[in-house]
Amino acid sequence: MSESNESGPPPETRQQIMDATYEALREHGYADLTMETIADEFEKSQSLLHYHYDTKQDLLVAFVGTFLDRLVDAVESADADTPRERLDATVDLLLSDPEAHSDFQTALLELRSQAPYVEAYREQFVENDAHLRGFIADIVRDGVDAGDFADVDPTRVAETILVLAEGARTRTIVFDDDDAIDTTRAAVDGFIRSHVRAD
Amino acid sequence: MSESNESGPPPETRQQIMDATYEALREHGYADLTMETIADEFEKSQSLLHYHYDTKQDLLVAFVGTFLDRLVDAVESADADTPRERLDATVDLLLSDPEAHSDFQTALLELRSQAPYVEAYREQFVENDAHLRGFIADIVRDGVDAGDFADVDPTRVAETILVLAEGARTRTIVFDDDDAIDTTRAAVDGFIRSHVRAD
Repeated sequence: MSESNESGPPPETRQQIMDATYEALREHGYADLTMETIADEFEKSQSLLHYHYDTKQDLLVAFVGTFLDRLVDAVESADADTPRERLDATVDLLLSDPEAHSDFQTALLELRSQAPYVEAYREQFVENDAHLRGFIADIVRDGVDAGDFADVDPTRVAETILVLAEGARTRTIVFDDDDAIDTTRAAVDGFIRSHVRAD
Repeated sequence: MSESNESGPPPETRQQIMDATYEALREHGYADLTMETIADEFEKSQSLLHYHYDTKQDLLVAFVGTFLDRLVDAVESADADTPRERLDATVDLLLSDPEAHSDFQTALLELRSQAPYVEAYREQFVENDAHLRGFIADIVRDGVDAGDFADVDPTRVAETILVLAEGARTRTIVFDDDDAIDTTRAAVDGFIRSHVRAD
């Protein structure tokens, strides 16, 4: 990034750019995504897009960086107060209808598959994952402290949930398998019932 | 395929072509894989490669089709007789050292991410998955019949194991995360102990 845009675009512009990126990924997939296809979805000028993000890679890293905020915001605004309700709400969101956004999920798996080749993608995915794992582990820890959950290892529980969610998303996309989410939801519920809950 | 090669290459040639495909995928990844890069790894003539497989896509479908045979052969030749031992051996193989073959696993995730775009890939992945699910479910069913396992739904158990294995593989590749396999192995063992085994 050039010096002038180090702090990033103002929030409203940033949101419009992220929305345009989402639409362009849905429409073109990752392989055919360019700054031009993103600009086509952006209401403002193409030069404004280039002013804020030098390359497609810069933009996609910023885009991936918004995922976690959206998930955390959604959990915070869900009607969930106890650790058990908050954990359920988080699992719901992790497994929420990828079929409903399957073009986007398809593009996202392509993007994830590029992490071994593009270090900036990997770093952002790793950062997201560490935060998400910490977010879930904090919920589990609260539940352990409150006596709602058994004396489990919160990080280990978070990792198991994330492995299941990752597997379900990948299978849904690769196999076009509607059942993967339901199977996984049942597996996560069984895991939480038998390994996490105190009762 | 042309009429002359409908039955496919003889076993030894087929094995050499599949070995060459594996090496080319490791070396070049999926995006840069061509019939030429595969031919470079093939001891025999390039024309023989083209004689047996018209396109890279044909060849990769055949390549993916060999995965399951290898897994089943490995389980059959493992020192595992009881359903419990056979289930353990299968999980071991599903989760075996992807880090040791990480270039190949990286290429394989790229290939899987193309399933929504290339129907022939999706069909082969779906076929593999159905066979693998059936293979695992049969082991579980044998265990239920023998009284080693509780009265579980064999297909549901197989799906849960496959979701966990898929998630672990994807996370290992995307995050370069050595721990994903260990975490998953512990989660699968916990799942089998508490949900599958009769004792």
